[in-house]
Amino acid sequence: MRQEFPRLNVKTRGAGLYDVTAEVEAWVHEQGIEAGLLTLFLRHTSASLTVQENADPDVLRDLEDFFRRVVPERHGLYRHGAEGADDMPAHIRSALTLTSLGVPVRHARVMLGTWQAIYVFEHRAGSFTRSLDLHLIGD
Amino acid sequence: MRQEFPRLNVKTRGAGLYDVTAEVEAWVHEQGIEAGLLTLFLRHTSASLTVQENADPDVLRDLEDFFRRVVPERHGLYRHGAEGADDMPAHIRSALTLTSLGVPVRHARVMLGTWQAIYVFEHRAGSFTRSLDLHLIGD
Amino acid sequence: MRQEFPRLNVKTRGAGLYDVTAEVEAWVHEQGIEAGLLTLFLRHTSASLTVQENADPDVLRDLEDFFRRVVPERHGLYRHGAEGADDMPAHIRSALTLTSLGVPVRHARVMLGTWQAIYVFEHRAGSFTRSLDLHLIGD
Repeated sequence: MRQEFPRLNVKTRGAGLYDVTAEVEAWVHEQGIEAGLLTLFLRHTSASLTVQENADPDVLRDLEDFFRRVVPERHGLYRHGAEGADDMPAHIRSALTLTSLGVPVRHARVMLGTWQAIYVFEHRAGSFTRSLDLHLIGD
Repeated sequence: MRQEFPRLNVKTRGAGLYDVTAEVEAWVHEQGIEAGLLTLFLRHTSASLTVQENADPDVLRDLEDFFRRVVPERHGLYRHGAEGADDMPAHIRSALTLTSLGVPVRHARVMLGTWQAIYVFEHRAGSFTRSLDLHLIGD
Repeated sequence: MRQEFPRLNVKTRGAGLYDVTAEVEAWVHEQGIEAGLLTLFLRHTSASLTVQENADPDVLRDLEDFFRRVVPERHGLYRHGAEGADDMPAHIRSALTLTSLGVPVRHARVMLGTWQAIYVFEHRAGSFTRSLDLHLIGD
C-alpha cells in the first residue's frame, strides 16, 4: 500500500467553474497505483469543489446564476465586508458545495461517470491561485 | 490491508429519496473487513447522495419540498433545457448535496448513527439505473 | 499502514458553529502517523460539518443568518414537527452542508489551509452531545 500527496495550484481569474479533471487524471495515471482512493481537498473557504456535467457549458452558467440568486452580493445583507462585497457570499457558496471529495481509482484511472467533471468553483471576483491537495492511497 | 470495489445499481422511478443503507451494510458485512473506511461515490450529476433521518417519512417529503421550492422547475429560468425541464434543477440540487461520502467501518459494520440512513437522491422525473461505486479499504 | 478510530463528543448549547479544529489536530498529532488520510463523520442528521474561515467571527454569524433565511423555522411550512419546530429546518440545513469530510495528513498534521477551521454546525436550539467519529489511516 502506497500513498502520494501532490498539490495542484489552480489559477482562477474571476468567479466561475474551472475544470481540473484532466490534470487530476493525468497525475493519477502517472503514479502507477492500480487501485485505491483519491481524495481532493481544497484549502480555501471562498472557493470550493463540485462535480458537474462536462458536456453543455450552459449547465455551468445556470449553476452560477443560481448561486448568485440564492446567495446575493447585496449591500447591507452581511456583517462581514472587510475583504470586499464578494467575500461573504463566497463563504456561503463554499459551505453549500464541497471542500473535499473522495473518488475510487481503478486501473490507474479516476472512476468518474461519463458525464462527470471535477471543478474548482471560484466564488470571488479577483485572480487567485487556489491550492488543491490530492491524496492517493492504494496499490 | 485489503481493498474491495463493487458497484451497486440503484433503480429509481421518479424524483425522491431511495434508501440504500441495507444493501450497503449487507455488502460491507460480507467482505469480512473488520476495520476500515467505506467511500460511496455516485457517478451522476442529476442525482446525488445524502444522509438523512430513517424514522419519519415526512422528513423525506419535507426535504423534497424544500428543494422544489428553492430550485424550482420553471420555464425561462435556465438556459440548459435540451434534456428536459427537470434536468437543470437536478444538476443544481446535486451540487447542493453530496456526490461522495466517507464512513468509518468497525466490527465489519458501517458506523452510521442510530437515526441515519444513506439515500440516493434522485432529482429527475423518469426511471433510471444509477451507478453507486463503493470502495472499502481496511483489514 | 495503521488505522485509528476515536470518537469525539462535542457538546452544543444551541444553534451555532462549534470549532473542533484544535481537538482534532491534537488527537492526530498524538497518533504518530506521519502521513495519511483523516475522515471525520458526524453521526447525526440535525447537525452537520462545515469548513469555514477561522478569523472573523462575523463570518459565522452571517452564515447562520443565511441558513435561517433560506431554511426558515416557520409554522405550517413542514409536515414533520413532532420533535419541535427547529427539527425539520435542522435536517434540511444538514443536507445542504456536510456529514463527512476527508483531509490529508502530513508530518502528523491535518493539512488545513491557513484560514480554515472545521466546525460542527449545530442546527437545533437545545443542548446536545454530538458524536464525531474520526478515522485515520496511514503510516
